[in-house]
Amino acid sequence: MVSGEARKVDDASVALAVSTVIFALRQDEASGLATVWLPLVRRIREPFDGQWALPGGPLGAAEDLATAARRTLGETTGLTPGYLEQLYAFGDVDRSPGPRVVSIVYWALVQSEEAQRASVGENVQWFPADDLPALAFDHNLIVDYALWRLRNKMEYSRIAHAFLGETFTLTQLREVHEAVRGRALDPANFRRSIEGSDAVVATDQRVTGTRHRPARLFRYNTSIDLADQGPLSRLNERKEP
Amino acid sequence: MVSGEARKVDDASVALAVSTVIFALRQDEASGLATVWLPLVRRIREPFDGQWALPGGPLGAAEDLATAARRTLGETTGLTPGYLEQLYAFGDVDRSPGPRVVSIVYWALVQSEEAQRASVGENVQWFPADDLPALAFDHNLIVDYALWRLRNKMEYSRIAHAFLGETFTLTQLREVHEAVRGRALDPANFRRSIEGSDAVVATDQRVTGTRHRPARLFRYNTSIDLADQGPLSRLNERKEP
Repeated sequence: MVSGEARKVDDASVALAVSTVIFALRQDEASGLATVWLPLVRRIREPFDGQWALPGGPLGAAEDLATAARRTLGETTGLTPGYLEQLYAFGDVDRSPGPRVVSIVYWALVQSEEAQRASVGENVQWFPADDLPALAFDHNLIVDYALWRLRNKMEYSRIAHAFLGETFTLTQLREVHEAVRGRALDPANFRRSIEGSDAVVATDQRVTGTRHRPARLFRYNTSIDLADQGPLSRLNERKEP
Repeated sequence: MVSGEARKVDDASVALAVSTVIFALRQDEASGLATVWLPLVRRIREPFDGQWALPGGPLGAAEDLATAARRTLGETTGLTPGYLEQLYAFGDVDRSPGPRVVSIVYWALVQSEEAQRASVGENVQWFPADDLPALAFDHNLIVDYALWRLRNKMEYSRIAHAFLGETFTLTQLREVHEAVRGRALDPANFRRSIEGSDAVVATDQRVTGTRHRPARLFRYNTSIDLADQGPLSRLNERKEP
């Protein structure tokens, strides 16, 4: 009879890594529409030498999982995400040639301004999430799953906030939903649906610097969690200041 | 620049374990109402010697994560779950006194008949999920999170099926919802709500052996996934026959 954490695993055979899928919105130069993009890092050693992969790295002996995700993300891309959540642990025996690696994967959202500050170079580039090359390991599957999670969360939480600043117009909010869902939404229907919910609150401010009648700025109703994680919210509040 | 799985972790410092929260419904002897129960295993070594913990064990070098969850569950409790899904990876540095352990936790549902076949003894016992003693490690938090996930999934998937046989009466289905939500539901409202959805399909069969007018048996609409995992469903179908 063995309970939970009694024995150690065969240390020689399983390594532990933390990787992160980071999404940001970017304007498509051709269509002018916003779409979902993510930064990838080019591998500079085997296996998969030269192929693109999710940013990440090994778990440090003295750091929590989310701390490792933030650290490796900063080291590889220079990004500090506004939203970070654990996605899934990928551990199939055959997911990597060579020594076995279990990857605990996080997903993160960054605002467009932050995304523009990201380091970009020969070995870090942004790609449209819906049109990726063949990535290293099982990273295409991981991105597919992260996109699916993002689209699901958009429907039942105020996660779109993580792509926006503190205040935003309803047009900006609609563009976030359009980018994530990948299709145009009727502006009047969208406005009615948002105004009929308690998700956003109108402020006294309006955007400045436009020639038309300036649009009203809204903010999210912060009495609703960004993404409800139930009992884990306690843990994450404590661990991720 | 480090990508994903390039370096190995400090093997001496982080061990990897797989544990599982298994829920089943049991009739409360006093009230006659069904409630959510789970089996726990008594630890027989330090740390937390003598305390109750989730069933689990170390990840084998040649087994996938879900395979390890099924194996350790079988070894400790004799249970074969009808439903098994990854819950979360718990890896805080301070979650275990001694050597660091990262636990990848699954949650599972078993039907009451299967639950009755479970091995029970001095070191394996069933507890009501809402009234647990102080468990080893962070296992109280883990159970709280699994319960929260179960309650959420009940609302938007046909997960209740995993507690029932192939066919069931609407009364049996209501009792599952009542047990998980922890409160009585109005029978007429529940019937209308279920019949108005496409979640269940009426069969030609009725229950036998009752003195009253026998109730009709229903089955779930299997064109809807048990619990939608999006792109991961492919992976799990392949890996978990």
